[in-house]
Amino acid sequence: MRTVSWQDGQVVLIDQTRLPHNYELIKTSEVPRVADAIRRMEVRGAPAIGVTAAYGMALAALQAHSSTEKGLRSALKDAYQLLAKTRPTATNLFWALNHMQSFAEKLFEAGEKDVPSALLAEAERMADEDVAINQRMAELGATLIKDGDTIHTHCNCGPLCAVDLGTAMAPVIYAHQQGKKIHVYTDETRPRLQGAKLNAWELANAGVPYTLITDNTAAYIMQQGKIDMVMIGVDRVAANGDTAAKIGVYGVAVLAKHHNIPFYAVSPLSTIDMNLAAASEIPVEQRDPDEVRIVNDTLITMPDANVVNYAFDVTPNELITAFITEVGILYPPYDITFKEAFANRES
Amino acid sequence: MRTVSWQDGQVVLIDQTRLPHNYELIKTSEVPRVADAIRRMEVRGAPAIGVTAAYGMALAALQAHSSTEKGLRSALKDAYQLLAKTRPTATNLFWALNHMQSFAEKLFEAGEKDVPSALLAEAERMADEDVAINQRMAELGATLIKDGDTIHTHCNCGPLCAVDLGTAMAPVIYAHQQGKKIHVYTDETRPRLQGAKLNAWELANAGVPYTLITDNTAAYIMQQGKIDMVMIGVDRVAANGDTAAKIGVYGVAVLAKHHNIPFYAVSPLSTIDMNLAAASEIPVEQRDPDEVRIVNDTLITMPDANVVNYAFDVTPNELITAFITEVGILYPPYDITFKEAFANRES
Repeated sequence: MRTVSWQDGQVVLIDQTRLPHNYELIKTSEVPRVADAIRRMEVRGAPAIGVTAAYGMALAALQAHSSTEKGLRSALKDAYQLLAKTRPTATNLFWALNHMQSFAEKLFEAGEKDVPSALLAEAERMADEDVAINQRMAELGATLIKDGDTIHTHCNCGPLCAVDLGTAMAPVIYAHQQGKKIHVYTDETRPRLQGAKLNAWELANAGVPYTLITDNTAAYIMQQGKIDMVMIGVDRVAANGDTAAKIGVYGVAVLAKHHNIPFYAVSPLSTIDMNLAAASEIPVEQRDPDEVRIVNDTLITMPDANVVNYAFDVTPNELITAFITEVGILYPPYDITFKEAFANRES
Repeated sequence: MRTVSWQDGQVVLIDQTRLPHNYELIKTSEVPRVADAIRRMEVRGAPAIGVTAAYGMALAALQAHSSTEKGLRSALKDAYQLLAKTRPTATNLFWALNHMQSFAEKLFEAGEKDVPSALLAEAERMADEDVAINQRMAELGATLIKDGDTIHTHCNCGPLCAVDLGTAMAPVIYAHQQGKKIHVYTDETRPRLQGAKLNAWELANAGVPYTLITDNTAAYIMQQGKIDMVMIGVDRVAANGDTAAKIGVYGVAVLAKHHNIPFYAVSPLSTIDMNLAAASEIPVEQRDPDEVRIVNDTLITMPDANVVNYAFDVTPNELITAFITEVGILYPPYDITFKEAFANRES
C-alpha cells in the first residue's frame, strides 16, 4: 500500500496523524481536502507531499467545470494557490506544483486532446519514479548490510516518508526480505516522536525485528557493541557533503565515530543541493516551543518554560562514511563524487 | 524549603509527582503515609529517600503505644519492615533504616530516657549533614564556574534530589547567587522527563537563566560552541572512577569529549563505592517498557512496541574531567585520588 496513490478517481492517503493507533485511509476527489491533508500533516515527508500535490493538480483538471483551455487553466491556477498555502517551506511541494503547471502548458501547446488524463498520467509517473529511486537505493544500500547485522536509525525514514519504500529504511527492509537476519534500533525522536509513532510501526509491519529506545539510550547501545552501522534519512545536503537532517542526527554521527561504527546517509540526488557550498549556508528551522512542552495533549513542563526547538541539525561531511543514492554509493571526497554522480545521471 | 523536613510533629514533603504544575506539601504523622510517599515517588532521589526513611523511624518511636524498651523496639521493627518494602533497590533507604535501628539499640544500651526524641534528633542531624555536604560541593564546584559560563546538565540534580541544594545544580545555583552571569541548558531526560518536570522548575525558582531542550538537541548546542562545561549528578561510582548515572549521561560525556568541553561529576563520597573495582561490576537496572511507551497517560507508540528501557548507563573514567566531592575536587588518576579523599575524611 502506497502512502499516496490514485484509486477509482480518488486520491488515497494513509492518515499518518492516526498512526500507530489507527490505520485509516483518506479518500477524496476534492482538491480542498487534499490541501487539508498536507496542511494537517496527514501526509508528510518531502517526496510524499510533492506527489500528493501533483495528484491534487490532476484532480483539479479532472473536476474542472469547463474542459476548455481557459477553463482548465483557471482550475489549475485555483488549485495551485490552494495547495501552495499548505506548507510554505516544503521545497518539494513547490517543485511539484510548478512542474505540473508547466507540464500542462506543454500539453496545451502540443494540442493535447485530453489534458486532465495526461496530467493524471504525469502524476502517476512522478509517483512511480519516486518508488523506482527508492527501490534502487534499497538494492544498493542492502549490499552494505550483512547477515546478522544490527542497524541503528533516527526519525522516520521508511515507506511513510515517501510514496513507498522510504529512504534509510528501504535498504533495511530490502535486506530483511532477502532473508538476512537483521535487527534495528530506532530512536523515538523527540519532540515529534516519529520514531516511536511511525518507524516502529513500519518495522513491525514489515516484520523486521526492532527495538524502540529513547534518543538518549543510543550511546549506551553502541557502547555495548550492539550496532554495526547507522542508516539515516536526510533533509538537505550541501555540495561538500555537509548534511542537514532531523534534530539528533548530528549527535548520532558523533557517537558512531566514537564507537567506530559506519554512518550512512540514504539520500536521493534530489536532496543534494549543489547550489549550497557547505553547512554554513544551510538554514536551520526553529519550531514552536510547545512541540517540546506538550506531548500529544499533555503538558510535560511549565507552560512558560524556556525552550529552544531546532527541527534539524547539521552533520559535517567528515562524520559521514558514504551517501547511498539511486546512482551509486558515494564516498569522500564528496565535492568530487557528487559532481560525478550528477554528470552520470545527465549523460 | 527543604524537600524533606520536620515541622510541628509531622514529616513534611514536597510532592514531586505534582510538579511542576502544582506545588503541594504532604504533611503526615503516620508511618504508612511516609512509606506510601517513598513508594509513589512523591519523594525521590537517593539522599532524600534516606532522610525520609530516618524521619519515618523517628515517627514510629514517637507514635508508639508503649514507651517501654520492648514497645519501642516493636514499633521500630514494624516501621522498618513497612519502609523497607517501598523501593527495594534504593541503597540509601536501607542504609538509613539500618543506621536508625542500630542507633536506637545504642540509646537503649546507654539507658537513654527519651529514645523517641533522640531518634528524631538523629534524623535531623542526618538531614543537616546532607545539606552541609551539598553546601560544600556547591562552594567547591562554583570555583570552576566563571562569569558568563554556560553549563549543560542532564536529569534532575538540584534541590529536589536531596534534602536541599542538590548535587550538580548546587554549584550552579551557588555561582548564580554569587552574582556570576550564567546560563544552563537542561536536557528533558526521557523517559521520566525529570529535566523538563523538575530541573526546569528548580532553575526557574532559583532565578537561574535556563533553556530546556530535548535530549537529542545537546549535540547541536555543543557544536555551536554554546557550552563551557557539563555538570552531572551521578548514582554510583566505582573505585576507578567509572560512573553509573541517569540514562543519557554517557552520550553527553562522549559529546563533551568530541567538543573539548570539561565534564564534571558532582558526587558526595557516599556515592563512591570503593568495593566496586570498575564499571563491569555496576549492575544496570532495566525498567518497565511502559515508561517509554506512555508519557504521562498518553500512549506514544503501539501498546506492544518492542522497547528496552535502561534506567542508567555507565561512563568510563577517562571521559570524566573531575569529581566534585565534599572534601575536594578530585582529578585522575581516580584510583589514587579517591583513596586519598577517603583517608582524609577518616583522619
